[in-house]
Amino acid sequence: MGTPMARNLLAAGHPLTVYNRTREKAEALRAQGARVATLPGDAARGAGVLFTMLANDEAVEDVIFGSAIQNLGRGAIHVSASTISVELSKRLADAHAAAGQGYIAAPVLGRPDAAEAKKLWLIAAGPRDQIERCRPLLEALGRGITVAGEEAWQANLVKIAANFVLASMLETLGESFALVRKSGLQVHQFAEILNALFRSPVYENYGAIIADQRYQPAGFKMRLGLKDVDLALAAAESATVPMPLAGLLRDHYLEGIARGHGDEDWAAIAKVVAENAGLDGAAAKPRTGTAT
Amino acid sequence: MGTPMARNLLAAGHPLTVYNRTREKAEALRAQGARVATLPGDAARGAGVLFTMLANDEAVEDVIFGSAIQNLGRGAIHVSASTISVELSKRLADAHAAAGQGYIAAPVLGRPDAAEAKKLWLIAAGPRDQIERCRPLLEALGRGITVAGEEAWQANLVKIAANFVLASMLETLGESFALVRKSGLQVHQFAEILNALFRSPVYENYGAIIADQRYQPAGFKMRLGLKDVDLALAAAESATVPMPLAGLLRDHYLEGIARGHGDEDWAAIAKVVAENAGLDGAAAKPRTGTAT
Amino acid sequence: MGTPMARNLLAAGHPLTVYNRTREKAEALRAQGARVATLPGDAARGAGVLFTMLANDEAVEDVIFGSAIQNLGRGAIHVSASTISVELSKRLADAHAAAGQGYIAAPVLGRPDAAEAKKLWLIAAGPRDQIERCRPLLEALGRGITVAGEEAWQANLVKIAANFVLASMLETLGESFALVRKSGLQVHQFAEILNALFRSPVYENYGAIIADQRYQPAGFKMRLGLKDVDLALAAAESATVPMPLAGLLRDHYLEGIARGHGDEDWAAIAKVVAENAGLDGAAAKPRTGTAT
Amino acid sequence: MGTPMARNLLAAGHPLTVYNRTREKAEALRAQGARVATLPGDAARGAGVLFTMLANDEAVEDVIFGSAIQNLGRGAIHVSASTISVELSKRLADAHAAAGQGYIAAPVLGRPDAAEAKKLWLIAAGPRDQIERCRPLLEALGRGITVAGEEAWQANLVKIAANFVLASMLETLGESFALVRKSGLQVHQFAEILNALFRSPVYENYGAIIADQRYQPAGFKMRLGLKDVDLALAAAESATVPMPLAGLLRDHYLEGIARGHGDEDWAAIAKVVAENAGLDGAAAKPRTGTAT
Repeated sequence: MGTPMARNLLAAGHPLTVYNRTREKAEALRAQGARVATLPGDAARGAGVLFTMLANDEAVEDVIFGSAIQNLGRGAIHVSASTISVELSKRLADAHAAAGQGYIAAPVLGRPDAAEAKKLWLIAAGPRDQIERCRPLLEALGRGITVAGEEAWQANLVKIAANFVLASMLETLGESFALVRKSGLQVHQFAEILNALFRSPVYENYGAIIADQRYQPAGFKMRLGLKDVDLALAAAESATVPMPLAGLLRDHYLEGIARGHGDEDWAAIAKVVAENAGLDGAAAKPRTGTAT
Repeated sequence: MGTPMARNLLAAGHPLTVYNRTREKAEALRAQGARVATLPGDAARGAGVLFTMLANDEAVEDVIFGSAIQNLGRGAIHVSASTISVELSKRLADAHAAAGQGYIAAPVLGRPDAAEAKKLWLIAAGPRDQIERCRPLLEALGRGITVAGEEAWQANLVKIAANFVLASMLETLGESFALVRKSGLQVHQFAEILNALFRSPVYENYGAIIADQRYQPAGFKMRLGLKDVDLALAAAESATVPMPLAGLLRDHYLEGIARGHGDEDWAAIAKVVAENAGLDGAAAKPRTGTAT
Repeated sequence: MGTPMARNLLAAGHPLTVYNRTREKAEALRAQGARVATLPGDAARGAGVLFTMLANDEAVEDVIFGSAIQNLGRGAIHVSASTISVELSKRLADAHAAAGQGYIAAPVLGRPDAAEAKKLWLIAAGPRDQIERCRPLLEALGRGITVAGEEAWQANLVKIAANFVLASMLETLGESFALVRKSGLQVHQFAEILNALFRSPVYENYGAIIADQRYQPAGFKMRLGLKDVDLALAAAESATVPMPLAGLLRDHYLEGIARGHGDEDWAAIAKVVAENAGLDGAAAKPRTGTAT
Repeated sequence: MGTPMARNLLAAGHPLTVYNRTREKAEALRAQGARVATLPGDAARGAGVLFTMLANDEAVEDVIFGSAIQNLGRGAIHVSASTISVELSKRLADAHAAAGQGYIAAPVLGRPDAAEAKKLWLIAAGPRDQIERCRPLLEALGRGITVAGEEAWQANLVKIAANFVLASMLETLGESFALVRKSGLQVHQFAEILNALFRSPVYENYGAIIADQRYQPAGFKMRLGLKDVDLALAAAESATVPMPLAGLLRDHYLEGIARGHGDEDWAAIAKVVAENAGLDGAAAKPRTGTAT
């Protein structure tokens, strides 16, 4: 995910130093003009704005508290684009403020191909002036920005809630497809009906993935799906909000991982549901239904 | 729901005899050229095509097995537009076939205002020739028709599954809004973000209803929402398909009815979820968030 | 189940005419003095008290409305020992009253071996004088009787609720054993700890069955477990009571049946839970834990 | 909980230094011969065995890593009696080993009145010789000890799993009582039937509490119930085990806390269930049912 974002920043003419655990990924950006850092903290040194796009809370904590916060200058801004917990985002805001640095959250919505095509949607939050200073960089990354509020964690919460909505649409597709398929109807036709009725690109894209049972290669892995649902449940518990549907998603992701599907696309939650209905994971029959 | 459908049939130039339990509703159609029947069976006598648009299985059973099937001539076709069970649809197919009559199912998707505007979507199923004979009538009712198969019950199953998808979107809105609202963010702004991301008219329409807490007057009552989820669970049990999300919807509709919200719009499932998070049902604060 | 009950009635000296779909089962009772009826209705003819012990609502409806109610004399009493729905029990009460007959419900708790050992527990309900008239017969069947009320359906409701409690204990054992087992501990030892703490014969008996994974032969089949949970959900919906745990049990029984375990013991709900955790159904290792 | 445990240790003749955040609680033990420490770390200094009985992970971390581990001598043993996470128990084992100290876990089952009456049950785990050295102390605390294994965390896992079983019995009572009560039957009579059938002291004690709706004063608060269910879910996620019933308990405890019942007894999960069925929390009618 970081690579296409870096490419878009470079393409927009912004000077950029990159770091990646997998050195080759960073080196591949040199041709486009990026400088390559040897250590994560080196990317922070002298930067006006530091972007982080990492897998989870632990990775962000390691990089920021490990060295980046010491190396980042006073007045520089950390833009956290990762999907992290509300709680960590609050701690980062405090730590950067104590170091005389800025901090905004700008998590992104979209899969790697959307990032490549500059079609991400960004949810930003933080002090208004800091967001404005970073706006040209954020605009280089996607098709639009929504400002969620003046405290960085608010963007993280919105991202977490939006991902919950997306995951719940996958579960919904899974259950309705299992019902339709086991009753003897064509799931591809049913997917088309849902498109006609609900007209969401989510049902269109994921409906096709699930009807075709194309869970590999993963655009976003089931393990990460579990991580995101856990973030929703943690935020909900902090706010004392029961979210039984989020709990159901969590159980199904755990089932999928327990059965060995953890590296498949998170849409494979529909496969878990199908297996629970005694349907095998084999490819569904090709579409032959009629629609007018 | 029957009234706007009848109007559209009359407007398209089809002669029509109408029956409604509430005589005034039927009489109101006389000005547009409808004849009014005194008993449900009378509407069937001499008809080439008989439409039924009734509240539930029991009402359809009463009308059809009570008198309509005797009064309907051989070769006539019964078009069942109600949302009824798969099991009743199969019994109707058998009974009409035994009486030398045709039978197709053509349940409709859309609320009364969509029916009025001729914007319903129809899911039809049954013998191909019978559907073709009825097509001009079906086209008079909405904006499109999907043919789900050659057995009538298939349309009922698709309708039931599509309604389950819709209800699950309401639950999803309810849980995500409760999380966002109790964390101190603006639900109207969050609703806009969901629209930008998922671009479904369902999220747009219902997102606004739920954010505004406009649950009365009901476009579709919570009691009917429960009925439809029960139809999904019954069809799923027949096919031995677990649908835990449908079970969750059922529990929340039961909770809403138990707390006295049964005559509110089925979107008030979001109110049940909010109450379970300790949020009162009072109107949310007016929208003041910023979005760019 | 009917056979040991019949044996106990005969052993207590009551004259008895028996009917069973499987003629051999009825014939086997002839040696103990039973007369054997050729048709179910024949068993009712001339009887002072008619017991029914049948699989489900449909079987009871067939027998009673099919012929027994016509053949049973005025003043005779029908004792329904089957686990049937509250709704059917109310219809039976009305029908028998209209025919000048008595009707009480006396569902039994216990498995076939408990019936054999005269250790069933009976929940009886109905008009007080009718229960008293039948008391010697009921006492011949088990170790105790609880009178639930003066309307027969009340006993059916209590039976349904008690079976829900039992099924929920099986789910609880399943989830806790899966956690303990997959964490690397001995389930047999954990089962012993539960016995020490909670001292219920249910945990003792079923804990051993589940720890040993002895799901065949079934004492009570998973399909019947589903039927009983469905009765609880139906009664709960009539009373507008959400029972999310009952919904969870239903989903797990459906999963088990969908995966081909429908004829195993209903304790195999724990196998469904174990499979969902990626544990195979193979026998657990023999017990080697230490306990003092 | 710590006070009755301290009393039992003193009564058995063991010299004891006590610390409690609330000084009065510690002082009250002086009359029985306890020495009172001013700081938690002081209680550790010079002790051969250090017991901790604290509310949650955070409290144990504060005390042990804050000062106790430095003050405790080489060769001394820390006996952790609190219900803490598997993960913290593993960290404690490592830290104490590194400091040349012993560490066993010995969480207790039972409420304060059971502790008072020396009727706790202890689940111990850790190196065999350390458990043997502490056995006289453990025996002074309760009616029995089960050794769960040679690694301390195993006792914590068993405790967590056993508490999950107990909480699930409360949910089960809640749902079945709501069904019975809203159907118009007496819950006290139903509670007696459950006792006759399942013969567990848990159903007996908690069945009476729930039937009487005696949720205050709390023997164990709903907030602590939520904490324990969260420990089960965390251990289950580590082992990749879905526990949907634990998720349901979590939702109901969150609902209860959100509605303001957080300081009531954790049996009030049954009140949450009753409220969801539209039943008020007012006292149930006194018992008038008949049972024989």
